[in-house]
Amino acid sequence: MTEKQLADQAERYQSVIEMLGGYKAVTMDRLWSYIPDQEPRRYLYDLIPLYPQRAGKGFRPGLCIATCRAFNGSVSSVLDSAVAIEMFHNAFLIHDDVEDGSLSRRGQPTLIHEFGLPLAVNAGDALNVLSIRPLMENLSRLGPTLTWKVFTEISHMVKQSVEGQAMELGWVQDNVIELTAEDYLRMNLKKTCWYTCIHPCRIGALVGTGGTVDLDRFNRFGYFMGAAFQIQDDLLNLVGEEEKYGKEIGGDIWEGKRTLVLIHTLNRSSSAEKTRLARFLSIPREDRAPEDVAWVYDLMDKYQSLAFARAVAEELARAALEEFEVAYGGLPDSPDKQFIEDIVLYMIDRDL
Amino acid sequence: MTEKQLADQAERYQSVIEMLGGYKAVTMDRLWSYIPDQEPRRYLYDLIPLYPQRAGKGFRPGLCIATCRAFNGSVSSVLDSAVAIEMFHNAFLIHDDVEDGSLSRRGQPTLIHEFGLPLAVNAGDALNVLSIRPLMENLSRLGPTLTWKVFTEISHMVKQSVEGQAMELGWVQDNVIELTAEDYLRMNLKKTCWYTCIHPCRIGALVGTGGTVDLDRFNRFGYFMGAAFQIQDDLLNLVGEEEKYGKEIGGDIWEGKRTLVLIHTLNRSSSAEKTRLARFLSIPREDRAPEDVAWVYDLMDKYQSLAFARAVAEELARAALEEFEVAYGGLPDSPDKQFIEDIVLYMIDRDL
Repeated sequence: MTEKQLADQAERYQSVIEMLGGYKAVTMDRLWSYIPDQEPRRYLYDLIPLYPQRAGKGFRPGLCIATCRAFNGSVSSVLDSAVAIEMFHNAFLIHDDVEDGSLSRRGQPTLIHEFGLPLAVNAGDALNVLSIRPLMENLSRLGPTLTWKVFTEISHMVKQSVEGQAMELGWVQDNVIELTAEDYLRMNLKKTCWYTCIHPCRIGALVGTGGTVDLDRFNRFGYFMGAAFQIQDDLLNLVGEEEKYGKEIGGDIWEGKRTLVLIHTLNRSSSAEKTRLARFLSIPREDRAPEDVAWVYDLMDKYQSLAFARAVAEELARAALEEFEVAYGGLPDSPDKQFIEDIVLYMIDRDL
Repeated sequence: MTEKQLADQAERYQSVIEMLGGYKAVTMDRLWSYIPDQEPRRYLYDLIPLYPQRAGKGFRPGLCIATCRAFNGSVSSVLDSAVAIEMFHNAFLIHDDVEDGSLSRRGQPTLIHEFGLPLAVNAGDALNVLSIRPLMENLSRLGPTLTWKVFTEISHMVKQSVEGQAMELGWVQDNVIELTAEDYLRMNLKKTCWYTCIHPCRIGALVGTGGTVDLDRFNRFGYFMGAAFQIQDDLLNLVGEEEKYGKEIGGDIWEGKRTLVLIHTLNRSSSAEKTRLARFLSIPREDRAPEDVAWVYDLMDKYQSLAFARAVAEELARAALEEFEVAYGGLPDSPDKQFIEDIVLYMIDRDL
C-alpha cells in the first residue's frame, strides 16, 4: 500500500473503533437494566455483570445496530435485540470457559477459575434466561409479528452455536486428529459465524426494514466475515499480546483446540511428528508440559501454519467484501454502511 | 386409617399413577418431535434423549395438563407448554448433575459421568434452547397474547430455578452451616416449587381458561405441595431403594446438600458434633470417607431428623390440601380435579 492508502486505512479503522465504541456504550447502558439488583447477589447476581463489564469489543451489537441503521432503521428499534445478542454471547462465554477449563477471559480470571464450577455453570444459565427479557420487551415497540421473527432468529442462532460447540468439544474429547480445513470451516460456521455475524446482520435488517427484505442475502457475507474473524482470533491466541488480547497466549494449544493452524500443522507433519502431536493432544491439559507446548509452536512455525491461516483469513475477508455488495450494495451511502464495509478488513487487522 | 380408608387410598393412588402415566405418554410422544434427527449426533443429539428416555414420573406435565383440563381446557391446547416444561426440567437436571458432581440419575450414569463435563454442559444448553421451540409452536394454536403470557410464565420459572440453585450451591461451596428451616424453605420455593408445581398449575389454568383467571391463586397451593415433594425426595435419597429411586442412596450426604434433615441435625448437634459435621462438610466430596457418611446417618438418626422432616412434609401436604380448595374448589368435579387433589398425598407417600 502507498503511504496515502495506509493513512486512509488508519483513518477508517479509527472510525470503526469509534463507532464500535459508541454502539457498545448504548448497548451496555441498556444491558445493565436487565441484570436484577436483588438477592441472591453473592452466589449469582454479583457474578453476572463480570464478563459484560470487562472490555469486549462489541462487534455483535455494533454490526446489528449498524445494519439496522444502514437499512434506514433507528437505534432504539433494534437496541433490545442487540442487547439480547450481547447477553447470549456473554452467557456463551461463561460456559465456553467452563467447557475448555480456561483460566483467563478479557484479562481477568474466568468465572469458573474465580468462583468454581457449580456457580459458574449456574451463572451462565441465569444469563441465558435473562437474555430472553429484552426480546420480550420488543413486543411493545415492534409488535407481535416482528418480535416473533427476531425470536426465531435468536433461537436458530443459539442452536447453531451449541451444535458448533459440540463438534469442537467432541474433537478434543475424542482426540480427533484427522481433520481438514473444510471440517474446521464447517465447525466455525456453526460455532462462530451465525452468532457473531450472520444473525446480527439479519436481525438488524429485519428490524430496520420491518421484515420486508430477504434475510438470506447476509448468509454468505456473514459466513466469510465470521470465519475470517475467528481465524484472526486463533492467530491472536498464538502471537498476540496478552494484555491486549485478554486471554492466556497459547491457551488454545494448552487446551488442544482444533484451530485451522493446528489442523494445518497436523496435516503437514511427518509421521513421527504427527504421532508425538497426537500423544500431546491425548493427555489432560494439566499434564501437558511447557516444553511440549513450545515444541508445538516450533512445529507450527516450521510448517508456516500461521502464515497459511493468515492467508486464508485474508482470502475470506476478500470474499466477504465481494458479498458486501450483494448484501448492502444497493443501499444509499451512509456512515453505517461504510462502517460495515470497513469492519471486514478491521477484523483481520485488529490486534485485540 | 381403617382398612376401608387404606383401600380407598390405594385405589386413588392407583388412579394417580395411571393418569400420570397417560399424560406422560402424550407428553413424551410430542417431546421426541422437538429433538432434531441430525448431526452432530455423537457429541450432541445422541445425548439429548438420554434423560427424557429414563423413567421420570412426569409430575410437571401431568399437573399442567390436568389443571388445564380441570379448567375445561383440552390436552392439545396445553401439550406444547407441558412439553416445554418437561424439556426445561431435563435440561435443568443435566446441569444440576454437573454442578453437584452426581454419579447416577434415574438409575443410570449421569451425563457428566458418562460423557465428560464439556459435552454435558453443552447438551444442557442445547436442551434449553430446544425447549423454546414448543413455546413458539403455541403461536398458531393460542394466538400471540396467550403465547406471550405462557412465555412470561416460563421465563419467571427458569429465573426462579437458577436463583434457588445459586443459593443451594453457594451454601455448599462456602460451607454455610448456620441455616434454619426457613432458609431451607425459601431456597426450596425458588429451586423446586415454582417449576415443579406453581408454574405447571398456572400455565395449565392460563391455557385452560384463555387467560381469564387470576393465576396467583395457585401460588400457595404449589408452594406447599412443592415443598412437601422436595422433602420427600430428600428422604428417599436417604432411605429409599436405589433401584426405585434411581439415584445413589445417601448421595445428598456425599454431596453435602443442605437438606431439611441435615439442617435439623446441625441445629440439634452438640458443639463437638457440629464441629465434626462442619469439618466433614468442608472437605471435597471425593475425600469424604464411607465411615464418616455412616456417622452422619447415625447422627441424623440420633436426633430423629428424618422423623422431623417427615412431619414437616405431612404438615405441608395438609396445608396444600387446604389451599387446593382455594385454587380448585370452585370447579365442577372431574377426574382431573380429583387427580390433582390425590396427587398431594401421593407426593409424600411415594417410594420413587
